[in-house]
Amino acid sequence: MAAAIALSSRGRGRTAPNPNVGCVIVRDGRIVSRGWTQPGGRPHAEAMALAGVDATGADFFVTLEPCAHQSERGPACADLLAEAAPARIIVAATDPDPRTNGGGLARLRDAGIPVVTNILADEARRVMAGFFTRQSKGRPHVTLKLATSLDGQVALPDGSSQWITGPEARAHAHVERAMADMIVVGRGTVEADKPTLDVRVDGLEDRTPARAVLTRNFAKLQLQADKPVWQHLDSPDAIAGLEAVDHVLVEGGAGAAAAFLAAGLVDRLLLYRAPILIGSGLSALGDIGLAQLDDAHGQWRLMETRMLGKDRLEVYERA
Amino acid sequence: MAAAIALSSRGRGRTAPNPNVGCVIVRDGRIVSRGWTQPGGRPHAEAMALAGVDATGADFFVTLEPCAHQSERGPACADLLAEAAPARIIVAATDPDPRTNGGGLARLRDAGIPVVTNILADEARRVMAGFFTRQSKGRPHVTLKLATSLDGQVALPDGSSQWITGPEARAHAHVERAMADMIVVGRGTVEADKPTLDVRVDGLEDRTPARAVLTRNFAKLQLQADKPVWQHLDSPDAIAGLEAVDHVLVEGGAGAAAAFLAAGLVDRLLLYRAPILIGSGLSALGDIGLAQLDDAHGQWRLMETRMLGKDRLEVYERA
Repeated sequence: MAAAIALSSRGRGRTAPNPNVGCVIVRDGRIVSRGWTQPGGRPHAEAMALAGVDATGADFFVTLEPCAHQSERGPACADLLAEAAPARIIVAATDPDPRTNGGGLARLRDAGIPVVTNILADEARRVMAGFFTRQSKGRPHVTLKLATSLDGQVALPDGSSQWITGPEARAHAHVERAMADMIVVGRGTVEADKPTLDVRVDGLEDRTPARAVLTRNFAKLQLQADKPVWQHLDSPDAIAGLEAVDHVLVEGGAGAAAAFLAAGLVDRLLLYRAPILIGSGLSALGDIGLAQLDDAHGQWRLMETRMLGKDRLEVYERA
Repeated sequence: MAAAIALSSRGRGRTAPNPNVGCVIVRDGRIVSRGWTQPGGRPHAEAMALAGVDATGADFFVTLEPCAHQSERGPACADLLAEAAPARIIVAATDPDPRTNGGGLARLRDAGIPVVTNILADEARRVMAGFFTRQSKGRPHVTLKLATSLDGQVALPDGSSQWITGPEARAHAHVERAMADMIVVGRGTVEADKPTLDVRVDGLEDRTPARAVLTRNFAKLQLQADKPVWQHLDSPDAIAGLEAVDHVLVEGGAGAAAAFLAAGLVDRLLLYRAPILIGSGLSALGDIGLAQLDDAHGQWRLMETRMLGKDRLEVYERA
């Protein structure tokens, strides 16, 4: 299942509104086939893994309950799998989509195939966070990235921020970009830094996501003619209306980051910290609407921490 | 030797200008006696360990080269040890004090006692950092403590900072106070917070160090009549002239912390970080005189990191 989850991450940022599923087919303890949801959301992971493979009597590991609903773009995965007649189907997370929601498992069991569920379910939901957040909250999953000094500054007073973190941390942040459907920055960042926000990692250049700027005055925004096409968000809440965007990465500046936090729309915090002190400079966040310290506690849970070169990455999720 | 180093930490903050040495006497693989430098700097650790013990033929572990200079307050430890006739003497760090500086080792070797040196020397020097910094730089060793949110803030805009970190982190910070000879805060902290800066840990209440305020206008300082006696520092450089102060702990606020950093007078950084976001508030540091980002890099090395309840402690030292 861990292998299936790793495969599912390949589709992250490219399959919305479909979930980025991964699966493997195992016979005699060996993986004989694998699949993951393709860009645009089809074919589904199960169809990819089953293509040209005889799965009869094999074990089928899939990160999400196979879908029970047929669409114009393909048959229901539960039907495909029932026909393939594997020995067992092992599922990480059940599908909250009302069109499936247990129906896929029921169809497989009706076909006489043993089904095991809830294997590494949390890990699977984490990699398919966009799909699950869309289902539960009706909006994309939002990651906020901050790259700070030890004292929480993101730039010198003159705005210079190249570089706070080292090449390893910056490469990691580019891979995070590749796993987002859309990057959002604030107006000040667009005007001051003129960022391209592209994915500058060998082999992932084509994974640059859509780009949006958060501003109430899009018409006044100074955009460079030869630069990327910018979509426009009036407010953080506007992410709910985006089509084919399930994973949003907010990259700053302090105002945009604070706006998403104040709106309660940050699910995950990526904190890259360099072992430097800046002193008076630009702080990572603007006003997030905190009235008293008590309210700040219990909001974030540390999920992962690791060194990236000399910098430390910490990943927090909403508690 | 690790046991001797642990013992040496008991004297930290109470033995200046003498080093806080620790030692153990080992016979047949068992510790038969132990000692550490007593408050005020005398008796020395070696004399404490040897008192009432026959060390003939035993192994003697000591964190610092035994002193070679006799004083009015006691004989040279090298002579004491030579008389005790141990089988071997194992030393962590040699003594940079020009009155000893190899002379203690030479006297022991002249007495026919085998001497082993450089065992856990870095660890020993770290615990006796005040003495070594005084010897090498002519000033106390300075630790700067910061307690921040993930975004580097130390208080809300109205100054409220109770509490950012939890009870485990605050208890740890009180033990750090107990291991300092002096705590320094800025004028704003004295006037706004009216801190007592005492050690509020069971069993360590009597370890509250001297307290100083950093200000150019000591005469104008608003002090409470019933509060602790405050010493006065005109500038960070004034620490060099303090008597019997080898370990200084700077506790803030942002201005005092920045003044010590700008003066290049911080040797060690204690960073307590709570898993909270504050947003716009009070930053940990004022202007530290950083002209460009390049200059900020390579200054700090992570020595230790651990969880204290929900908070994380990071200890950095000057690279």
